[in-house]
Amino acid sequence: MSIAKTPPAPYYAVIFTSLRSPVEDSYGETSHRMVELAQAQQGYLGHESARDGLGITVSYWESLDAIRQWKQQSEHLLAQQKGRITWYEVYKVRICKVERDYGFENKEIL
Amino acid sequence: MSIAKTPPAPYYAVIFTSLRSPVEDSYGETSHRMVELAQAQQGYLGHESARDGLGITVSYWESLDAIRQWKQQSEHLLAQQKGRITWYEVYKVRICKVERDYGFENKEIL
Repeated sequence: MSIAKTPPAPYYAVIFTSLRSPVEDSYGETSHRMVELAQAQQGYLGHESARDGLGITVSYWESLDAIRQWKQQSEHLLAQQKGRITWYEVYKVRICKVERDYGFENKEIL
Repeated sequence: MSIAKTPPAPYYAVIFTSLRSPVEDSYGETSHRMVELAQAQQGYLGHESARDGLGITVSYWESLDAIRQWKQQSEHLLAQQKGRITWYEVYKVRICKVERDYGFENKEIL
């Protein structure tokens, strides 16, 4: 997992913060599949993910419309439903406009 | 670490994504101290953090001005400098406006 190479701002971010239930039940597979599907969506720009207890996944998108379409993608809708029934104790989704960004790499500005 | 209890949108988020160097050199202490300091800043709303290889910390703020003030806080400025010299191979900072959010907890909408 590395830092997403996003285009110049503005663009959009979805911050998905979650606590998992102890139930595995194909979570890993589905999670992997959702990344594949998201990457194939129009307007997908990249994503970043980390979990140690709390899980944080941030996906980046060209527009609010691209986010809406991803939320309504049929296989993703089923995964969201199963997420609520099976995999997550609690989650929060935040839809954001990235107004500005900057970075650092090996002593040089990205 | 739990999901931040943020007020109704709109509010602001700073997404800080990083890869660490192997150097510890008081990283843990400083990291803890920065959380204390951030919590004492005007306009701080909460934060969420996870690292497994990639580190993601999202802090939430009332306004862009609160974010600006936190970035300029004197002890934080020193930590940022040491971060570039010592602790991070690469990082990216994204300043966002949270336009909308929703959540789920134990089968109930938050």
